Amino acid sequence: MPDAPAVPAAGLLDALRALLGPRGLLTDPADLAPHLADWRGLYRGAAPCVLRPASTAELAACVRLCAEAGVAMVPQGGNTSMVGGATPDESGRQVVVSLARMNRIRDLDPVDMTMTAEAGVVLKAAQDAAAAAGCLFPLSLGAEGTATIGGVLSTNAGGNTTVRYGNARELMLGLEAVLPDGQVWNGLRRLRKDNTGYALRHLLVGAEGTLGIITAAVLRLFPRPRETEVAFCAVRDEDAALALFRRFRDRDESAVRAFEYMSGTGVDLAVRHIEGVAHPLATRAAHYALVDLASSRPDAGLRRLMEDVLEAALEAGEVLDAAIGGSEAQRAALWRIREEHPEAQKREGASVKNDVSVPVSRVPELIRRCSAALAALVPGSRPVPFGHMGDGNIHMNLVQPEGMDPAAFLARSDAIMDAVNAVVRDLDGSFSAEHGIGRLKTDMMEAWRGGAELDLMRRIKAAVDPRGVMNPGKVLP
Amino acid sequence: MPDAPAVPAAGLLDALRALLGPRGLLTDPADLAPHLADWRGLYRGAAPCVLRPASTAELAACVRLCAEAGVAMVPQGGNTSMVGGATPDESGRQVVVSLARMNRIRDLDPVDMTMTAEAGVVLKAAQDAAAAAGCLFPLSLGAEGTATIGGVLSTNAGGNTTVRYGNARELMLGLEAVLPDGQVWNGLRRLRKDNTGYALRHLLVGAEGTLGIITAAVLRLFPRPRETEVAFCAVRDEDAALALFRRFRDRDESAVRAFEYMSGTGVDLAVRHIEGVAHPLATRAAHYALVDLASSRPDAGLRRLMEDVLEAALEAGEVLDAAIGGSEAQRAALWRIREEHPEAQKREGASVKNDVSVPVSRVPELIRRCSAALAALVPGSRPVPFGHMGDGNIHMNLVQPEGMDPAAFLARSDAIMDAVNAVVRDLDGSFSAEHGIGRLKTDMMEAWRGGAELDLMRRIKAAVDPRGVMNPGKVLP
Repeated sequence: MPDAPAVPAAGLLDALRALLGPRGLLTDPADLAPHLADWRGLYRGAAPCVLRPASTAELAACVRLCAEAGVAMVPQGGNTSMVGGATPDESGRQVVVSLARMNRIRDLDPVDMTMTAEAGVVLKAAQDAAAAAGCLFPLSLGAEGTATIGGVLSTNAGGNTTVRYGNARELMLGLEAVLPDGQVWNGLRRLRKDNTGYALRHLLVGAEGTLGIITAAVLRLFPRPRETEVAFCAVRDEDAALALFRRFRDRDESAVRAFEYMSGTGVDLAVRHIEGVAHPLATRAAHYALVDLASSRPDAGLRRLMEDVLEAALEAGEVLDAAIGGSEAQRAALWRIREEHPEAQKREGASVKNDVSVPVSRVPELIRRCSAALAALVPGSRPVPFGHMGDGNIHMNLVQPEGMDPAAFLARSDAIMDAVNAVVRDLDGSFSAEHGIGRLKTDMMEAWRGGAELDLMRRIKAAVDPRGVMNPGKVLP
Repeated sequence: MPDAPAVPAAGLLDALRALLGPRGLLTDPADLAPHLADWRGLYRGAAPCVLRPASTAELAACVRLCAEAGVAMVPQGGNTSMVGGATPDESGRQVVVSLARMNRIRDLDPVDMTMTAEAGVVLKAAQDAAAAAGCLFPLSLGAEGTATIGGVLSTNAGGNTTVRYGNARELMLGLEAVLPDGQVWNGLRRLRKDNTGYALRHLLVGAEGTLGIITAAVLRLFPRPRETEVAFCAVRDEDAALALFRRFRDRDESAVRAFEYMSGTGVDLAVRHIEGVAHPLATRAAHYALVDLASSRPDAGLRRLMEDVLEAALEAGEVLDAAIGGSEAQRAALWRIREEHPEAQKREGASVKNDVSVPVSRVPELIRRCSAALAALVPGSRPVPFGHMGDGNIHMNLVQPEGMDPAAFLARSDAIMDAVNAVVRDLDGSFSAEHGIGRLKTDMMEAWRGGAELDLMRRIKAAVDPRGVMNPGKVLP
């Protein structure tokens, strides 16, 4: 990998300016600032410029120029990475490539049930476009108002509805991308079946911009739900939460749009800190589950299904109490308890986030063992496990002890993550379920994916990006 | 790529024999014969031996020995490839690696809803094991009694239920594989979310054994259906068939397990040639659709859904007549009309098969234009389009004219395939939907996937298999 120049040669900047025009090239420090740090504040990088191409052809020309000059590029969508995946390093040698201006929905076909969206389309805008056509684009996550299609595909984002619709990967039929040498690959095929060689689109999804820049995608749409039901349930313990999930899945796995776990601590924090969030049950419990059912059938009978399953679980002692949302507003209020978990934790003080997954059967053990290990590691700290139980994906977060200096608590971050990951490893889990690797977790790749797997990844990286110009320092150690 | 010796050096055969024992190494011509030709009879190859390792460790040792000797390997499962993907070439230099003895189901977990199966497990055996545990492994195709898990993953097989459950790819969570240098990669993770680097498992799926040998896989299971309904419908035309599919999909896309199109010609051939196949309708039509609904809900009300949708379609003039299977036996009889299509065509004479796909919205145009082009190309020939309309995947087959010399008809195969593919290309489709590339279609890769895409595939092949020992001559031209 050749050393890049300390700053792009003036000739390169001139060429990029000529190519992109004033709207397409930012160099003013005030304009650059929002692009140089991740929103969590984990990293602050430097860059001589931000490129904002308006089309795939413009982007391809940029990549060609940068690649020939040996200048590394950091693709950036909504800059909502949880792991610093879209932040340039501190060298000042990397340029940021923002996809923000490539935000057209090129096509939406309600017969094919596909939408072709450019990388810079905000996830919420994609959802809205689908809804306007009477369809559903089901990917849904906290940052959906900012995150972009290119970003959610590059990180294979998960979110709340993965249990029903899969990760971002499963919602993608085709891709267009600019490769590290500036070639454009047009793989925007709207096909449900296409077995013609290696699955390049699956290689780019989840590669976090290290193998090329996704510029557009063909996305799968679904019929819009015509019935929905949401229940907030106090459950006996972690095992009871899993048992409840199994009851719903067994009855109608296609109706379970989301199944979320929350701890009593997490629910209490949401009620305490977030205006308008109220506890929906008289019962206080140490464990809660949120179940969301949906069907495109207008006569699905989901209310009866919900009541039948909850009644059986109540009789079995798994569910202690439950509230079913009786209106759209009530359903939204129940969901808000879960969605405000990150914000409530933030207001309570410093916290360390762990995005981990295990086989679904092992979620109860994951929560129990991690909670005990963390409480022992940092006395007075408060484990706040929550998240996507139906996917085996729990955010095993830890909030600082009351009154402790936040910096002193955050100084323990590595030990906290190590404690969680020791349990995860023992349960055959993953150290990054839906957030990816970025910069934050590259140093864990050797221990978790070392040997044949990492060796193969490195060979693929070298074959696809021999100059090492695509988002270096991310994913691979 | 180094030239392989004309026959393996005696030292290599001795080493393989010592490693595998007499059950693990076949050299008798009578034992070899079934492994040297594809079942369609398109190719007849030669090989000095067939390796039949009993474990991943044995296979890894074999691969190491062969790779060091520069001897190419052809992985083979049930040898049901439609495109000669598992047949050695005529050189006699390639050895066949049969996965048949690696046929254990290592694990089945009804809580995780996963099954870990070795490559040599027959698809039907995997289905049966899931059913015995009260679950469903939904992949279903004509060759399921012979095809193996390693084969269906290596070719990303589709089949009848793709419209509901996806291709083989979407049913796979993790893989174990032996890489071209003999390293074992253990990626048997039972996780629904795992974003930790490049998706190597998706690269191996569909690579047809050219990047390594899949030895085991973690497969997704689903709750077993508790209600099923099947209807056989005479429809007005191709557009009406699509309109009927849309009606069902819109009402409950999760209930549509299969939606198959058949031509009047195809149905007539099945009735004429296959004992026990009777026409279920008084109405004779030029176009038919088979719809299969299923739900894990015991109270899904699928019969009402079926009747409601068919009634609306009858009123709209899309459906001319329909029979709903009233029992398991009747449903099987309706399915049999569709399943016997290949056999009925065979009994009618020579036929040319085309496995193509287009966006779902373009299936009617595909059928119409291809049928007209083929009838014009070979006067008296009979187009028999049938297959997976819900996936946009039609087997655009052509049966020879009555009385024509089969060999003379088959001599037109290339022209027939070209005529179909010209239409497919014009409709933004694929020249191989679910059968893959194998040997049969490698020479089409340049025209269809040439440029950046094929270039990238070649670079990946060279990076993963630098000696070119894994199934050479397949997939890549």
